[in-house]
Amino acid sequence: MTVAPKPFMDKDFLLETPTGRHLYHNHAAGLPIIDYHCHLSPQAIAENNPFRSITELWLGGDHYKWRAMRANGVGERYITGDAGDYEKFAKWAETVPATFRNPLYHWTHMELRSAFGINDTLNEDSAKSIYDRCNSRLTDPGMTPRGLMERYGVEAVCTTDDPIDTLEHHRAIAASDFKVKVLPTWRPDKAATLREGDNTAWREYVAKLGEASGVEISDWNSFVEALGGRHDFFHGNGCRLADHGVMRFPWKDCTAEERDTLFARALSGDSLTADEAEKLSTATLLELCRMNHAKGWAQQFHFGPMRNVNGRAFRSLGPDTGFDTIGDYNCCEAIARFMDRLDSEGKLAKTILYNLNPADNEWVAAMTGNFQDGSVAGKIQMGSGWWFNDHIRGMEAQMNSLSSQGLLSRFVGMLTDSRSFLSYPRHDYFRRILCNLIGKDVDAGLIPYEELPRVEKMVEDICYYNAKRYFNL
Amino acid sequence: MTVAPKPFMDKDFLLETPTGRHLYHNHAAGLPIIDYHCHLSPQAIAENNPFRSITELWLGGDHYKWRAMRANGVGERYITGDAGDYEKFAKWAETVPATFRNPLYHWTHMELRSAFGINDTLNEDSAKSIYDRCNSRLTDPGMTPRGLMERYGVEAVCTTDDPIDTLEHHRAIAASDFKVKVLPTWRPDKAATLREGDNTAWREYVAKLGEASGVEISDWNSFVEALGGRHDFFHGNGCRLADHGVMRFPWKDCTAEERDTLFARALSGDSLTADEAEKLSTATLLELCRMNHAKGWAQQFHFGPMRNVNGRAFRSLGPDTGFDTIGDYNCCEAIARFMDRLDSEGKLAKTILYNLNPADNEWVAAMTGNFQDGSVAGKIQMGSGWWFNDHIRGMEAQMNSLSSQGLLSRFVGMLTDSRSFLSYPRHDYFRRILCNLIGKDVDAGLIPYEELPRVEKMVEDICYYNAKRYFNL
Amino acid sequence: MTVAPKPFMDKDFLLETPTGRHLYHNHAAGLPIIDYHCHLSPQAIAENNPFRSITELWLGGDHYKWRAMRANGVGERYITGDAGDYEKFAKWAETVPATFRNPLYHWTHMELRSAFGINDTLNEDSAKSIYDRCNSRLTDPGMTPRGLMERYGVEAVCTTDDPIDTLEHHRAIAASDFKVKVLPTWRPDKAATLREGDNTAWREYVAKLGEASGVEISDWNSFVEALGGRHDFFHGNGCRLADHGVMRFPWKDCTAEERDTLFARALSGDSLTADEAEKLSTATLLELCRMNHAKGWAQQFHFGPMRNVNGRAFRSLGPDTGFDTIGDYNCCEAIARFMDRLDSEGKLAKTILYNLNPADNEWVAAMTGNFQDGSVAGKIQMGSGWWFNDHIRGMEAQMNSLSSQGLLSRFVGMLTDSRSFLSYPRHDYFRRILCNLIGKDVDAGLIPYEELPRVEKMVEDICYYNAKRYFNL
Repeated sequence: MTVAPKPFMDKDFLLETPTGRHLYHNHAAGLPIIDYHCHLSPQAIAENNPFRSITELWLGGDHYKWRAMRANGVGERYITGDAGDYEKFAKWAETVPATFRNPLYHWTHMELRSAFGINDTLNEDSAKSIYDRCNSRLTDPGMTPRGLMERYGVEAVCTTDDPIDTLEHHRAIAASDFKVKVLPTWRPDKAATLREGDNTAWREYVAKLGEASGVEISDWNSFVEALGGRHDFFHGNGCRLADHGVMRFPWKDCTAEERDTLFARALSGDSLTADEAEKLSTATLLELCRMNHAKGWAQQFHFGPMRNVNGRAFRSLGPDTGFDTIGDYNCCEAIARFMDRLDSEGKLAKTILYNLNPADNEWVAAMTGNFQDGSVAGKIQMGSGWWFNDHIRGMEAQMNSLSSQGLLSRFVGMLTDSRSFLSYPRHDYFRRILCNLIGKDVDAGLIPYEELPRVEKMVEDICYYNAKRYFNL
Repeated sequence: MTVAPKPFMDKDFLLETPTGRHLYHNHAAGLPIIDYHCHLSPQAIAENNPFRSITELWLGGDHYKWRAMRANGVGERYITGDAGDYEKFAKWAETVPATFRNPLYHWTHMELRSAFGINDTLNEDSAKSIYDRCNSRLTDPGMTPRGLMERYGVEAVCTTDDPIDTLEHHRAIAASDFKVKVLPTWRPDKAATLREGDNTAWREYVAKLGEASGVEISDWNSFVEALGGRHDFFHGNGCRLADHGVMRFPWKDCTAEERDTLFARALSGDSLTADEAEKLSTATLLELCRMNHAKGWAQQFHFGPMRNVNGRAFRSLGPDTGFDTIGDYNCCEAIARFMDRLDSEGKLAKTILYNLNPADNEWVAAMTGNFQDGSVAGKIQMGSGWWFNDHIRGMEAQMNSLSSQGLLSRFVGMLTDSRSFLSYPRHDYFRRILCNLIGKDVDAGLIPYEELPRVEKMVEDICYYNAKRYFNL
Repeated sequence: MTVAPKPFMDKDFLLETPTGRHLYHNHAAGLPIIDYHCHLSPQAIAENNPFRSITELWLGGDHYKWRAMRANGVGERYITGDAGDYEKFAKWAETVPATFRNPLYHWTHMELRSAFGINDTLNEDSAKSIYDRCNSRLTDPGMTPRGLMERYGVEAVCTTDDPIDTLEHHRAIAASDFKVKVLPTWRPDKAATLREGDNTAWREYVAKLGEASGVEISDWNSFVEALGGRHDFFHGNGCRLADHGVMRFPWKDCTAEERDTLFARALSGDSLTADEAEKLSTATLLELCRMNHAKGWAQQFHFGPMRNVNGRAFRSLGPDTGFDTIGDYNCCEAIARFMDRLDSEGKLAKTILYNLNPADNEWVAAMTGNFQDGSVAGKIQMGSGWWFNDHIRGMEAQMNSLSSQGLLSRFVGMLTDSRSFLSYPRHDYFRRILCNLIGKDVDAGLIPYEELPRVEKMVEDICYYNAKRYFNL
């Protein structure tokens, strides 16, 4: 072998050409992070306790890693079970080299480097040494939730919160001297998800919503009033984003009368047909979107997963344990009709569409163009590569579709969607991929080099300024 | 930065390796253009008036640009509204740098260079100068519709025409000394599109068809007779292509009796169920395809868009204003059954399948192989990257799918699908992409260099000769 | 042209970077082949007769080539008709240069080189010479079915067999001194495929199954008993794999009572509704999968084709003649429910999912992760690029999806799926593509070069050892 391979993950990691390197180092790397969609625990930020061990940090709730370990033949005891911290870590370390070409391999080593200053590769041989070094660093004062957020240059994060949440932790953080903005996101899925058959879970939720809002929910109008009260409350606590997660996007229209009747029936415990459930889901989601528009919020639609497909695991481990998956639903027509309804009423808020199945990338990118109305640049956004698409190829595919069908320059960029305080390097990963894509185009003569100042501004916008303007947090 | 970037859009634009450059410069660039599918106005060609301004040429009807402007936050007044020519142009110029990585960026600069000899990049700074220079050139005698077609080496174009069209402009052009063949294409969508519920638009169209054909349409047979008469008339005026645009490809079979009854009911104003409408649509499209076969025409199926998804815009601006989009319909089985029916009758004409959703590329490429019957090389074609796929990545994806599932060598190649007399550089764009793809394969040892003469012929065939033979215009 | 193109198909064919070349030459090329899914004729192996001509070998049953010839305008007489051996070969030779960029071009020349030592390119000029040289080699003693398998380093093959098969040829081979393991695969599609309407073909099959098993099939229980007896018989003859081919994956649940009634009705000749047929298909497939689990077999699901879409060709030529195609069915939910049922019963066998439509790659890759249970590394597999995906781009797409969503390192790798004794170079093709993908990642700094020993092991595992362990033949 005569040509030396590029060193692993060096300063020019993922940057294949000179302009990409220039854009990254001089226009992307140093910008603050606005992590406008994540699943961090506000309580953990408020309490700011140090972490017990790297096992807690890495394996406490990360279903990406859990899935990889299961696929590698690791038993559940070492994943979500009662094995000790080092036992679990060792099983993960053993799995790491089995993840070559999976994003976990990069994330793991970016986190080791940026948070712990460890440049070794993790595997069964280095497991013990790395475990000990990480744990010894975790007692440093800067290694708490807040410390990590500051170290990574985070300016603001938006957590994901239920309408009935008291937001007490957000208020505690706001009242503290912590410089990073920690804002809630309104995620009212439980209110908007009606199912065929029994809706006990929904009814129980509506009862809690009544309590939280101080509104006695007896019909559609009081339901909307209760939601509206909580919406106001969230707004008052700095919330500027809504997030709506659906599997198959709902679209069945009905009259106000039908909606009222369906609501009354659902509330009384009647079971609904599939059609009826979809009608009431649609009506609720529409109403929630009208609220988002009235407040000037941005709303996010995350659509396309199948959740809890493994019944055995769901019964033993519960949700969010690594058994959700990419669905292959046809959602295009429903989304078009849904957005058209709101647009026709003049009530379509700034909207971000996130598809989970990348086979949908192209129509989603095209769909955004149908509801741009010239009021705000990039009003309708195609969301960054989400969840199963949060890797080099997935992010490139999303940006290529967006580039072809719309304006990459107006993209609000990356979010972590993560439960971990160590996942900010994903912003760095994204910025490198972005700069590489654009830089390669410049160096191949596809974008004029003489337009470099505009290209530099575009990179800065996508990494930071577009989000800052768009969300106006 | 030590390596100079490739100059923007130089003579080797898009050509990454030596053989690609050789193929393009020596075997593709100089060939005439057969633009077998476009939306040019025959009247504009017949009248051959000079253009008022670059704004008229560029922004008069180009919904690609309109969508980009809306996404960039430009108000409708500057897009389809009453703003002045320069005001509109300036808004477009400002939007251009926001389209980095979108095909509009390349198209815009290819058109500036090839039609106006302007090598500057367009942006807010150069807007006024470029506007003035373009407009001053538009008074040159060669800058009329006919002049532009000649300048770009166009040999023939096929416009898109309704069966009730008089074809008066085509006949005027044919009677003139204009060397470029301007032929009509038969596009009978209005006759073949029945909808659930009310079909007033269809009935009105049938009435006009009766007038145009001189046949009193009272039942299915007279309907077919009227269509057949117009089909003959088109054939007599040089038409050799049909074009059928559908959203979800129709396939519901019915008996002749059922069809006759449905026709009578639709004609009488009865509303149809979704099933009934699809049956009558299917029967009509089948009958039209039999006519295509009888005349030896090639027929095109464009399937997969959702049209007019933005109701507000449709009500204020009408159709074709930038609010159509990519659908995610499942059309595979319908197309298979439809083609099989015609093939079984021995009445399947030469056929080109164009899918709008690129997620369908692979099954569409495979589908063509099911109805190749050895009678004509490349009898069933996968159409060139259409509409939302008319960019580097989209064209490469289409050619890669075709290469893997069928014979790229038999491909009839590019068309503009455009309403603009400035869009011929898209053939150049395509030829560069094609030569680059093939050239890279040669230079990587995937195609033998000693077969270069056959490779050169393949390139010439795809750029020109395949279409010439296939359409036999 | 100043840079010489890479020679066609030299020793570094497809290997773009140093580490890829190293991995291929030193860790992949020399490994034995386990061809765990093919359609070779056990009779041909048992009889081991020499081949009559290269035409028989190449064109006797290869519908890939037939499709290419039809697309190239070759008449059916020269494909499946009564033309002479050389006439057919000459038509194929003429078609070969028309297949540039199609995998057939590579397969053809890899086979010429590896089996016949012929380095010339095939085209109309070289046709006669190559025909004669191939045929003269076919009389060599090593050019029989067994000779070819030995020449290519095959360790084991799994053929595809019907439950009613006597397996006499497998037993004859096992009793011979042939060193290559030739094992049957259980493919009970005919037992599990119920259709809407008439099920005469199924009833006839059930009757044969009764005879083969010595069980009088009068109800569901005796049907299962008959299948179970044959399953035991296959196991006794070395079978360790099942293969289940479906178009749209069936999933309609029903009670045991309903299933028994449906079975009785189908057996009595009653026609079934679409729903009823799907229920009985589902119940049968579930039962077959329980048997697979009980024996510790691996089971394969091949889903997504539309078969026999060209009725005219089917009536004149029968099945498997080149008129099957890629479907666009939504199978995700059915597969999830189906696997979940078996998993919930603790009866989910090792499973390989093969999708025919590559638009499904990403959700299929993700789906495997939902049923990994830590019992066996890589228990649920995403199958290698199947049929219409058996080309560079298709295999890379499959491996990229698997890499992103799961563990490429646990992949059981390539199979030929072929009817030809000349198709083993496809393993070589795969190994080159695999080594190139991984090698490029190492050389680009995406995988650490210092982990090369683990990377080498990963390549060896995917090429050979994973399959050896997983199938345990």
